[in-house]
Amino acid sequence: MVIFGATGDLAKRKLFPALFSLYMNKLLPPAFRIIGVGRRPRTHEQFREAVRKSVDEFSRIKVADEASWQQFIKNFTYTVADVTNPSDYEGIKSLIEGFETEHGVEPCRLFYLAIAPDLFATVSHNLKAIGLGDTRGVKRLIIEKPIGNDFLSAKEIDEQIKQTFTEKEIYRIDHYLGKEMVQNINVIRFANNIFEPLWNHHHIACVQITASETVGVEERAAYYDRAGALRDMVQNHMLQMLMMVCMEPPSRLKTEAIHDEKIKVLRSLRRYSEEEVGAYVVRGQYQAGILNGKAVPAYRDEKNVDSASETETFVAAKLYVDNLRWAGVPFYIRTGKRMGAKATEIVIQFKEMPKNLYFNKNNDLGPNLLVITINPDEGIHMVLNAKKPGSDNQIMPIAMEFCNNCEQGTPEAYESLIHDAIVGDQTFFTHWEEVALAWEFIDPIRRAWDRNLHKLDFYESGTWGPASAHALLAEEGHHWWSVTKERQHRVVRATEVITT
Amino acid sequence: MVIFGATGDLAKRKLFPALFSLYMNKLLPPAFRIIGVGRRPRTHEQFREAVRKSVDEFSRIKVADEASWQQFIKNFTYTVADVTNPSDYEGIKSLIEGFETEHGVEPCRLFYLAIAPDLFATVSHNLKAIGLGDTRGVKRLIIEKPIGNDFLSAKEIDEQIKQTFTEKEIYRIDHYLGKEMVQNINVIRFANNIFEPLWNHHHIACVQITASETVGVEERAAYYDRAGALRDMVQNHMLQMLMMVCMEPPSRLKTEAIHDEKIKVLRSLRRYSEEEVGAYVVRGQYQAGILNGKAVPAYRDEKNVDSASETETFVAAKLYVDNLRWAGVPFYIRTGKRMGAKATEIVIQFKEMPKNLYFNKNNDLGPNLLVITINPDEGIHMVLNAKKPGSDNQIMPIAMEFCNNCEQGTPEAYESLIHDAIVGDQTFFTHWEEVALAWEFIDPIRRAWDRNLHKLDFYESGTWGPASAHALLAEEGHHWWSVTKERQHRVVRATEVITT
Repeated sequence: MVIFGATGDLAKRKLFPALFSLYMNKLLPPAFRIIGVGRRPRTHEQFREAVRKSVDEFSRIKVADEASWQQFIKNFTYTVADVTNPSDYEGIKSLIEGFETEHGVEPCRLFYLAIAPDLFATVSHNLKAIGLGDTRGVKRLIIEKPIGNDFLSAKEIDEQIKQTFTEKEIYRIDHYLGKEMVQNINVIRFANNIFEPLWNHHHIACVQITASETVGVEERAAYYDRAGALRDMVQNHMLQMLMMVCMEPPSRLKTEAIHDEKIKVLRSLRRYSEEEVGAYVVRGQYQAGILNGKAVPAYRDEKNVDSASETETFVAAKLYVDNLRWAGVPFYIRTGKRMGAKATEIVIQFKEMPKNLYFNKNNDLGPNLLVITINPDEGIHMVLNAKKPGSDNQIMPIAMEFCNNCEQGTPEAYESLIHDAIVGDQTFFTHWEEVALAWEFIDPIRRAWDRNLHKLDFYESGTWGPASAHALLAEEGHHWWSVTKERQHRVVRATEVITT
Repeated sequence: MVIFGATGDLAKRKLFPALFSLYMNKLLPPAFRIIGVGRRPRTHEQFREAVRKSVDEFSRIKVADEASWQQFIKNFTYTVADVTNPSDYEGIKSLIEGFETEHGVEPCRLFYLAIAPDLFATVSHNLKAIGLGDTRGVKRLIIEKPIGNDFLSAKEIDEQIKQTFTEKEIYRIDHYLGKEMVQNINVIRFANNIFEPLWNHHHIACVQITASETVGVEERAAYYDRAGALRDMVQNHMLQMLMMVCMEPPSRLKTEAIHDEKIKVLRSLRRYSEEEVGAYVVRGQYQAGILNGKAVPAYRDEKNVDSASETETFVAAKLYVDNLRWAGVPFYIRTGKRMGAKATEIVIQFKEMPKNLYFNKNNDLGPNLLVITINPDEGIHMVLNAKKPGSDNQIMPIAMEFCNNCEQGTPEAYESLIHDAIVGDQTFFTHWEEVALAWEFIDPIRRAWDRNLHKLDFYESGTWGPASAHALLAEEGHHWWSVTKERQHRVVRATEVITT
C-alpha cells in the first residue's frame, strides 16, 4: 500500500491507527509493505517514529509489547516525492517492485490518495506513465471526498482517474459506510423477519436522519467556508444513510446487487428545481451561544471565515423517494455544527394507532420508534407503549435498548474499509453512479442558494438549528425526535420533544 | 365486603394484604366495612390481630405508622357463622345494614366466597333467603376456582348461584388475569402499531406459553391429587393467557367487547376427541430429583398422595385456533410443578427469514422473538439479529429488554382484581361462557386419561418435563425456548435451547 500524503492529518489520525489495529487483529496479509510518500524529506526511522506517535495517540488498540510493534513497523518505508514530478515516481516503483521480488508475491498494489483532490488526476496519470498503471496482478485506488464540488467537476476528476483505473479498481471512501451501525442496517433489515413487512409507506410515518456535531469549524475553515454543510455532509454521508434505509432488498448481499439498489434509490429521489428548494431545504449558520457551559463564537467570527460568509453550517431537508415502497413518506435529514449534542442516528417513526380507537382518554400514546444509533453510541433503541404499572390502561412509552459498543469497543470505520480494500470488497464504497446522481440532486440546491433564492437562517450555538428546521416538520404534523443521547436518562418521557 | 372464610388461607395470604395495599394507595371508598365470617368464634379484636399478622407477613406495603393502621383496621368486624345454617345469616345482615344506616350509604355489597366451592350454592341460597339477595343498590359475588371439576358440575354450581346473582353480578376470579403483564397484553397489542400487522399466521411461526413452578404439591396434596394440573392450571390460567394473545381486536376495550372476543377464541379452539388426545397432549408426573441443589421426593412419595397416583403434575399441549388469523399456527402450552425454574411467560416466535437468502454461511440466524414475561420477572423481551461487531456480516442474536417491576414493585393480582370488583369492572374476570367452553375443551382430555388411552410420562424433578413434551414440538420443527430467567445472563446465546 502506497500512502500519498503520509505526513498528513488523515494518515496520522486514521490510517496508521487503523493499519495497526488490523495488524493486531491478524487482518493484514502475512507479507505486506506500507510505503509512505510525502513532499517532506524523512528517513525511514523518522517516518516510523511518526507512525508510532500516531498509534500511541489515536489507536483504539494500544502497543502492548515492543516485539510485536517491531514486527509491525518494519514493514513501513518512506520515500520523498513531488507528486507532480513524474520522475519522482521511480523511487516508489522500485520500492514496490523490490518488495514483490523479495517476497516472490504477485503484485497487489493499493494506492491511497490521502492528498488534495485536485491532485487525484495528476497522481493517476503519473502512476500510469511510470508503468504502475498497467501491471499484471491487482491494483486499486483509494480516494476520499471531496470528489469535485459539483457534478461537472466530479465527472472531470472521474474521467481522468479512469484513464488509469477502472471503476472496479476505484475505492471511493465514505467513512460513514464503514461505521458498524451503518453496516448493521442491512442486517437489521434483512436478518429480522419482523421488520421487512413494516418497512414501507403502509407502516412508516417518516424517517429522520440526524448527524449533529457540537464542534464548530475548527481548523477546516479554509476548506469549509467554500464547501459548506451541503457538500461536506449531505452529498455523501446523509444520502448514503438514506440509501441504506431505503433500498429494496438486493438479489444478493453482494457488491453489485447492493450498488444497483442504492443507485435506484437516488434515481427515485425527488429532485427539486431551484425554485422549489426553499420549500424543502433549510440552510442555517451558527451564531454565538453556550455549549457545554462554554461561550462559543459565531461562525462569521471564526478564524479564516469571511465575516460576511453566507456558508451554511447546517442543513435540514425534507426528501421523498418516489417509488412504490416509499410513496408519500417524508425523509427528514439534518446535519450541522455547534448543535446540542454530537449524535448520528436514524429514527424510523411508525404510523400511529388510530387515536380514538382504544386509548383515547388523555393518554400519551406516541408512535413506535426504531432508532439506529450510529455514533457515538452504537445500538438499537425501540420505543413501544406499555401499561403504566398499577394503572387501569394508562399508557406510557417504554424504551428497549441494545448497545453494540458497551461491552467492547468496535472497529473504527477506517479499519473496516481498509480491510475491505485489501480483500477487494467494494460493497461499502461509493460507486461512481452514486456520486454522480448525488451531485445531480445537490447541484440545483447549491445554485438556488448561490442565487440567493432563499435566505440563510441563523441558529444559536448549542441549539437544534433554526426555527425553519422545525417548521419543515411541523407542516406535516411531525416533529424532530430528540436524539437518544439526550433522551436516554428519561425513558419514561421518551416522547418528549426538544425544540429550540 | 363480606368475606366468607375469613380465617382461611386465601384471606390471610392474599385478601387482607391486598385490602391494606389498596387502602394505603387510597383506592378504597371513604366509608367501607369488611365483615369477616368464619366457623370459628373470634372477637373483633382477635380478628383484627389476625389481619395485622397477615399484613405484616404478606403485604408488599408494610405498616408505616400506627395511626393509619388504626384508621384502616377499625373498619374490620367479625361474625361467627355456620354458612349452612340460614339463621346464622341474621348476624351478617344486621352488620351490613347497621353499617349502611350508620353512614347513610346506598347498599354496595360484595360477598367474597373464600371457601370450598361445594358451599357456593348453599351460601348464595341462604343470602337470598335472608333477604340479602334482592336488595336495592349493588350486590356482587366474588368466587374462585375450582368452579366444578367438569362442565356438568360447573354448570350445576352456576345455575344455583344464578338463582341469587345475575351474570353481571358474578366476579369469577382467575388471578392470572390480575397480573400486570397479562393485563399489559392488550396494551402491547393495541397501543403499538408495529405489532398488529404481524399478529397472525403470516408472520408468527408458533406461540409458547409456559407456567412453571419449582415447588411440589406442598400442603395442597389432598385437593391436588384429585384435580391434577389439567384442571388446576390449564382449564383456567393457561387458556386465559391463550385468549389474551389470540383474541381479535375488540370493538372497544370494554368488558363485553373483550369477553365476546375471548369467547370467540374458545369457540375456534380445536377440540380433540378422546382418541386424538394422545397426539396433542402430554401428561407428566414428577419423579425424585435435585432442585436448587436439594434432593426432592417423587410426587408419589409426597405426603397425602396415593403411592400409585396417576395424577398429572405436568401438562404440555399443542393447540390450534382454527380461524383466519391463526390457521396453522401451533400454540404450545406447558405447565408443571418441580420444573427447572419458576416462570410464567409467553413467547411469540416469528417466522424465519428464508435461510438461503442472505446469511447462509453457517450463520446462527434464529427467529425473532417477542417474550412477555409475567412472573416473577415482569417485562418485555425481544430477540433480534444484528451484525456481530467487527465481523463481516456474521449474525448474532441480541436481546432488548424492558423491565416492568425493576424500579418499583407492581400491585399484586388481588389488589387489582378486588379494586375492579369494588368499582364494578368485570373486564379481567371470567365470564360463565368462558368457563363452560374451557370445560368442554378439557373434558375429553380428562376422560381420555381416565380411560388410560395414553400413558402418563415421568420427568425428573428440576427438568423441563418428560421427553414427550419436547417431541411434541420437534415434530413441527420447533423447540421450547428456555425461559428468560435462565437465559438472561447469556444474551449472546439467546437462541440456546434447554432440553431435559
